[in-house]
Amino acid sequence: MRRLLLTALMLLLLSAQALAQEPAPPKKVYGTAALMVVVEREKGRIAVFDTIDHELLGRVEGLGNLRHGTLVFSRDARYAYIIARDGTLSKVDLIEMRLDKQAKVGENSIGLAISRDNKYIMVCNYEPGGVVIVDSATLNLVKEIPAVIKEMADGTQIKARTVGPLDTPDNLMIFGLMEGNAVWVVDMKQKDFPVIKKFNDVGDTPYDQLITPDGRYYMVGLLNSDWMGLLDLWKLDEMKKLDVRERRAGLKAEGEKAPLYHIPHLEAWTVAGNIAFAPAFAEKRVIAYEVGTWKIIKSIPVSGTPLFVVARPGGREIWVDNVGAPGSREERLVEVIDVETMEVKKTIDVGKGALDPQFTPKGEAVYISVREEDKIAVYDADTYQLIKEFPSHKPSGVFCSDRATKFGL
Amino acid sequence: MRRLLLTALMLLLLSAQALAQEPAPPKKVYGTAALMVVVEREKGRIAVFDTIDHELLGRVEGLGNLRHGTLVFSRDARYAYIIARDGTLSKVDLIEMRLDKQAKVGENSIGLAISRDNKYIMVCNYEPGGVVIVDSATLNLVKEIPAVIKEMADGTQIKARTVGPLDTPDNLMIFGLMEGNAVWVVDMKQKDFPVIKKFNDVGDTPYDQLITPDGRYYMVGLLNSDWMGLLDLWKLDEMKKLDVRERRAGLKAEGEKAPLYHIPHLEAWTVAGNIAFAPAFAEKRVIAYEVGTWKIIKSIPVSGTPLFVVARPGGREIWVDNVGAPGSREERLVEVIDVETMEVKKTIDVGKGALDPQFTPKGEAVYISVREEDKIAVYDADTYQLIKEFPSHKPSGVFCSDRATKFGL
Repeated sequence: MRRLLLTALMLLLLSAQALAQEPAPPKKVYGTAALMVVVEREKGRIAVFDTIDHELLGRVEGLGNLRHGTLVFSRDARYAYIIARDGTLSKVDLIEMRLDKQAKVGENSIGLAISRDNKYIMVCNYEPGGVVIVDSATLNLVKEIPAVIKEMADGTQIKARTVGPLDTPDNLMIFGLMEGNAVWVVDMKQKDFPVIKKFNDVGDTPYDQLITPDGRYYMVGLLNSDWMGLLDLWKLDEMKKLDVRERRAGLKAEGEKAPLYHIPHLEAWTVAGNIAFAPAFAEKRVIAYEVGTWKIIKSIPVSGTPLFVVARPGGREIWVDNVGAPGSREERLVEVIDVETMEVKKTIDVGKGALDPQFTPKGEAVYISVREEDKIAVYDADTYQLIKEFPSHKPSGVFCSDRATKFGL
Repeated sequence: MRRLLLTALMLLLLSAQALAQEPAPPKKVYGTAALMVVVEREKGRIAVFDTIDHELLGRVEGLGNLRHGTLVFSRDARYAYIIARDGTLSKVDLIEMRLDKQAKVGENSIGLAISRDNKYIMVCNYEPGGVVIVDSATLNLVKEIPAVIKEMADGTQIKARTVGPLDTPDNLMIFGLMEGNAVWVVDMKQKDFPVIKKFNDVGDTPYDQLITPDGRYYMVGLLNSDWMGLLDLWKLDEMKKLDVRERRAGLKAEGEKAPLYHIPHLEAWTVAGNIAFAPAFAEKRVIAYEVGTWKIIKSIPVSGTPLFVVARPGGREIWVDNVGAPGSREERLVEVIDVETMEVKKTIDVGKGALDPQFTPKGEAVYISVREEDKIAVYDADTYQLIKEFPSHKPSGVFCSDRATKFGL
């Protein structure tokens, strides 16, 4: 009997010790102001990196079909909100490194934005069309805006596919209607989120949009028009036409028209000082515009058709990825344009399918997805030398959490 | 015997339970991208706020004499580095909410900056003069630059009081020499941190400096000259003279010269779109300059002599605090200038000694120290209504952690 009790005592002592030790696994503590988040699209997951030590912090999976997957950050950059092509909206905790909430918000979703006040997420849908607004804490639906462009005789409503959206300094959300050739503006401050402006006949088939970093101007790209829509967000008065003929077709005569393997993102426009740089459309060129007059200053030849055109913080350099035929030399290259001379000053052979250079907040390093080589490459932006590589399955979009503090990103 | 063993068993069970429960105090988890840090100068401490829920997260004390205390953030905004007037440099962990490291780096210190690569902190000293560079992880001294301006016959060195410093996109640090009338540039990328440029005779007594938000231009304010020094950081070629006669003295004739209770901070210059707004010097005015030409567009009358002039994110409004005689009406007021009309559109009676309006990253709320009323006021920037107040002992400088991603802040 005594023996039995002693054994029981021993067991209890051991379990007490185990309990005392167990709850303290060593966990890296980090601030969230400069995380780098990479979409691994085929795996439906994201990889999260610390950009001080260039270290993988963790991965979170189960995020749906991330083809064209994109994300935004909460105000404090604790959470990333990821929209999957299949309409799955995920709220991922970047500190606990786990899925916090998930909701189905569409059948075919294309983009999302977080409201200026951090309270709501708006998602643009191709299917069923229109936009939805959810609460950023719970992901519960709070509003649907169907974007109806036609009502049939039998009562059926035709909804437009929507693109965007973007948040503005006045806490508006803006999105485009592909079928409607329209741009709508929603006031996120007001109860029930009214559509306060509808700009019709802006041009043929809006497909993407941007706002300038100062939050003043909105631009909408049009698949089948020779202009872009330009709106002054302080006035919200009229959608002007910004001539992009040279950008779109002007160089055909020179035989430089190239197959367009991927439509460039408008978000890829970038502003350095008083110059905006944009990827040409089916041209192996980057176009430089003067901000304000929107006149073309120069069109700069690069190796392929640019997909992302990114200003290095400080604005002295523009980094450009190149899309080309699969297996071509150009799809390996990232090129660096010197803003003073407006010429390519460095060509870096990053690897097959290099895309989406994304800088750390102060620009000393840059993360690049090398999709066809299943890795993420980190370069020193001063020396153009490789610092580090991480294995990554088919990486695509790269997002730095300093976007949490920026409009329209 | 059995009874004794049972009692022992009971005790063990209880202690096992206690051990199992004890190590999990409920701790708020938060991202660090949008913290607001307020200096409580008389208590030698900081107060840290979450700007989503407007909630006090905690305080950390023992930071030295924080008269004129200022701070910068680490890249990930986990740490704040605070320099006290008495030369105490503190590294505060904003997640664990405790002092992480502390070092004495001078006898009388005035400013600090963190290098672009997050590795070093530079501190400017009045006593003993010169600057010191410490490792940002350990706070260990890695370099002293004495800023010697004169060597006496007996070998004694006269060191200049230094002001600044500022970090640049090219990983330089810049500081001014008050006695030397000079500006020095240090390369933080190179081994041993060489002074790569010395600009002499820039004007009489540099006292503060700024760089424009795009990281391109550096300006140095001069206590006794009618100009500011202006340097193109891409070229680093010459310190030009930016005429500020109107800003400094042009309005004397109109009888508007006011006692200067506090020299305005140059960091308080602000840029909205293509216009820079600066506090006038001993005038009850804010001056608007065109960026690039640096011509004066307008000088805007306000109620007192402005101390901080802050652009609301989005650039539609400029918020200005006012210094005045102790007990005056103007020292209670914060004024809002409309950038389109260039006129004061709203005057808010915030309270006695209101100073340093600091916006949340996307500008929907603003934190203001109300020093003589021992509180921090949070305003809704859309409605100009008070959202919340926090008791705070003699609050002074207010710093949002989105500065971690910005040059020169």
